[in-house]
Amino acid sequence: MPNHRVLILGIDGYIGYPLAIHLLKQNFEVCGVDNLSRRDRVRHIGGASLTNIASFDDRANYLSSFNNFIDNMSRIDVDYYETIDSAIKYFKPNTIVHLAQMPSAPWSMINAYHAYQTQHENCMANLNVLWAMKQHCPNAHLLKLGTMGEYGTPDCDIPEGNITNTCVGEYMTGKTMDDRYPCPMSGLIFPRQPGSFYHLSKVFDTYNVDFACRNWGLRSTDVMQGIVYGLNELTNDIEITRFDYDEYFGTAINRFCAQAIIEHPLTVYGNGNQTRGYLPLKDSIQCLTLAIENPPEAGECRTFNQFEEIYSINELADIVNRQARKLGLNPGIMHIPNPRKEKESHYYNPEHSKLLNLGYKPTDDLEGEIGILLKQLLPYKDRVNKKVIMPKTKWE
Amino acid sequence: MPNHRVLILGIDGYIGYPLAIHLLKQNFEVCGVDNLSRRDRVRHIGGASLTNIASFDDRANYLSSFNNFIDNMSRIDVDYYETIDSAIKYFKPNTIVHLAQMPSAPWSMINAYHAYQTQHENCMANLNVLWAMKQHCPNAHLLKLGTMGEYGTPDCDIPEGNITNTCVGEYMTGKTMDDRYPCPMSGLIFPRQPGSFYHLSKVFDTYNVDFACRNWGLRSTDVMQGIVYGLNELTNDIEITRFDYDEYFGTAINRFCAQAIIEHPLTVYGNGNQTRGYLPLKDSIQCLTLAIENPPEAGECRTFNQFEEIYSINELADIVNRQARKLGLNPGIMHIPNPRKEKESHYYNPEHSKLLNLGYKPTDDLEGEIGILLKQLLPYKDRVNKKVIMPKTKWE
Repeated sequence: MPNHRVLILGIDGYIGYPLAIHLLKQNFEVCGVDNLSRRDRVRHIGGASLTNIASFDDRANYLSSFNNFIDNMSRIDVDYYETIDSAIKYFKPNTIVHLAQMPSAPWSMINAYHAYQTQHENCMANLNVLWAMKQHCPNAHLLKLGTMGEYGTPDCDIPEGNITNTCVGEYMTGKTMDDRYPCPMSGLIFPRQPGSFYHLSKVFDTYNVDFACRNWGLRSTDVMQGIVYGLNELTNDIEITRFDYDEYFGTAINRFCAQAIIEHPLTVYGNGNQTRGYLPLKDSIQCLTLAIENPPEAGECRTFNQFEEIYSINELADIVNRQARKLGLNPGIMHIPNPRKEKESHYYNPEHSKLLNLGYKPTDDLEGEIGILLKQLLPYKDRVNKKVIMPKTKWE
Repeated sequence: MPNHRVLILGIDGYIGYPLAIHLLKQNFEVCGVDNLSRRDRVRHIGGASLTNIASFDDRANYLSSFNNFIDNMSRIDVDYYETIDSAIKYFKPNTIVHLAQMPSAPWSMINAYHAYQTQHENCMANLNVLWAMKQHCPNAHLLKLGTMGEYGTPDCDIPEGNITNTCVGEYMTGKTMDDRYPCPMSGLIFPRQPGSFYHLSKVFDTYNVDFACRNWGLRSTDVMQGIVYGLNELTNDIEITRFDYDEYFGTAINRFCAQAIIEHPLTVYGNGNQTRGYLPLKDSIQCLTLAIENPPEAGECRTFNQFEEIYSINELADIVNRQARKLGLNPGIMHIPNPRKEKESHYYNPEHSKLLNLGYKPTDDLEGEIGILLKQLLPYKDRVNKKVIMPKTKWE
C-alpha cells in the first residue's frame, strides 16, 4: 500500500519486527522505534531468545535495505512524552501500531516494583501516544495491542469489546413477549475481569483510548489478541523473530515446544482445563495488516477479538506431545501446582467475527503448525536454558 | 471506637482533615500522612483556600493535642513504594482511608503533562497502598475515595458498583415468561464511562482494588462519591477545612457560593441541564465513618454510591442565587460555553441504598445548607481572586 506510512512502536519485538518486514514487502512505508526493553528484561531473568536473532543494529540495517523503510530505527522510550511527541511529529504516520509494552502477566506479579513498572510503563506510554496523536496526526489510526486476557473468564458469552444484546440475551421489561427491548447497556464497554497487574494495564489502555476517541474524535482499533505462537515465515535468516520460552515471556505453546525439543516434560499449570484462544504468528500479522488496510471511522474505538481456535491447556499439551513423538522425542506431560490464581474449569465463548468479516483467512491447522514449529526449533535445542522454565512467581 | 486505628492518606485535604478531627472525637486512634500537593497545586494556579486555613505544622500540633492521635503527621509521598510501605508497617492500621489523590478533572485535561501526572500519581499510589497492605495488614479495610463521575451518564440506571438484574431489567433467553433467568453478567463491574483523564484514573483504581480483593483476599470499600460542598462543623477556628473555588479545584456549589459572596454572576457551563448527585461535607464524613464502623468481609470489594440528592446545575444556580438575595447579594446567573465535553441533557438514575441501609441520615436540606454556607463564607469575601474563576482549560 504505497503512500500509507506505518509507525511501529516496539519494532524490535516478537510481533513488531516480522510485522515491519511483512508491511515493507506489501509496499507500506514503514518506520519504527524501540527501547530494547524486551531484550534487556529477558536477559535480566537469565533467559535469551531461543532463536539466534540479529542485533538491533543489524536489523536496522536490514530494514533500511528496503526503499520504503523510512529513516533508521530509533532507540527511544515512549514513556517520555517529548520523545514520542517528536517521533510522531517527525514521521507523521497514517497508522501507529502500538506494540511497545511490557507483555508479561507473571513478570507483573513478581512484587510491588514489577507491578508498578508494568502499569506505569504501559499506561503512561499509551497516554503519551494519544496526546501526541491529537497534536500531530489526529486522523491517524491507532492500532493498539490488547489481550483477550482483559476479559478474564466470566460466566457468559464475551462480545467484541462492547455490550451487545447477544451477550445479555433477549431482554424484556414488560409483561409480554411483545414488550421486548434492546439491552439498555448496549454499546457500553463490556466489563473486564483481568487476572494480573499486566492484564489490568491493558484494561486501563482500553479505557484511555475509548475516551480519546469519544473526546477528541481519534480513531483506533483495540486488538484483543489471543495467545500467539510460532515463528515468522523467512526469506532470509536475518528475518527470524525472537522466541521466548521462559516462565515470564514464554507463552503456553511456545514454552511447550521449547520443552519438547529437549524432552523436558510439558508443564501444565493446575488441572489444565484453562481454555483460551490461540493463533499462529503469521495469522496475527495477517490480522494486523487487515486492520491497517481497513481503518475505523473518525471517533470510532473499534475492538477486534483476534484469535483462531479455542483449546484447553491439556489439549495443547497432548498435541505438542503427539507431534514431538513423530520426531522421535518423548517429553511427556507433567501437572504442576498452578502459580496463577485463575478458574481452572470455566465457560469460555468469546465472539470473534469482525476480522473474519474483513477477510481474515485462518490457518486452521494448529496441529500441523506445531509440527512445523518443532522442526524449526530443533536446530536451537542446545540454546535452551532449563533454569528459566519452571514458574517461581506466584499470584498469592 | 477505641482500639481501632485509622490511617488517613491525604490528612491535610478538604475531607481528610475534618475527617481526622471527627474520628478523634469519636475515640478512634488516628494517624495520617500528606505530601501537601493540594496546597502547592492551588498556589501554582494562582488560587488559595477561601478559608484562612492553618499551616500544616499548626494542624499537626492541634491533632497531637488529642491523646488518641498517633504520632505526628508525616510529609510523605505515597508515590514512592518505600515510603508507603514504611508508614503502613509502622502504623499497622485497621482501616486505611485513601484520600491522597489529585482530585480535579479540569487539571487533568490541561495538557499531556497534567494528564500523565494525574494518572501516574493516582494509579501508582493506590497500587503501592495495595501491595503494602498485602505485606503488612492484609486484614485491614481499605476505604478508597472514588467518584460518581467514574460511571459517566449512560442511558440506563446505574447500580452500586456491579451489574445487577435491576440495571439490565428483567431478562429472558427462552420463549415464554417462565424461562426468565438472572442476567448472566450479574456481579461483573458495571461499565464505566468516565469523562476526563482524572475520572479515568479513578476507574483504574477501581479495577486494581477489585483485583487485589479477588486475588489476595483484601477487603475494600470503593466510595463513588457525589459532589461534596460546604464547610465542616467547628468547635475551634483551627479546625476549619480548606475551601477551593477556582476553575480546577472548586466544584460546582462551592464555586457558585464564592461567586455569590462577591456578586459575580454564577457561571453555568453550557445549558445547565447536567445532572449529578450532591452531598454536604458533614454527610460525607458521616458516611465515611459508617463505612469504617462497618467493614466489608475479607475478599469483598464493596461499592457505595455516596450522595444525597440529585440536582441539575440550573437548579443549583437558582438555589444559590435565591439564598444570596436573602443576604442582600445580587450575583445573577450567566451561561458560558461549556469547556467540558459532556452530555448536557441526559438520563440520570443511580442507585444509592447501601449507605442508607447502614444507617446514613441524610441532611436532606440542600437549600438550607447553602444559606448557612453563604453566611459562613461572607467574612472571607476579600480573599476571593476573580482571576481563577473562569474556565481556561477546554476538553477538546
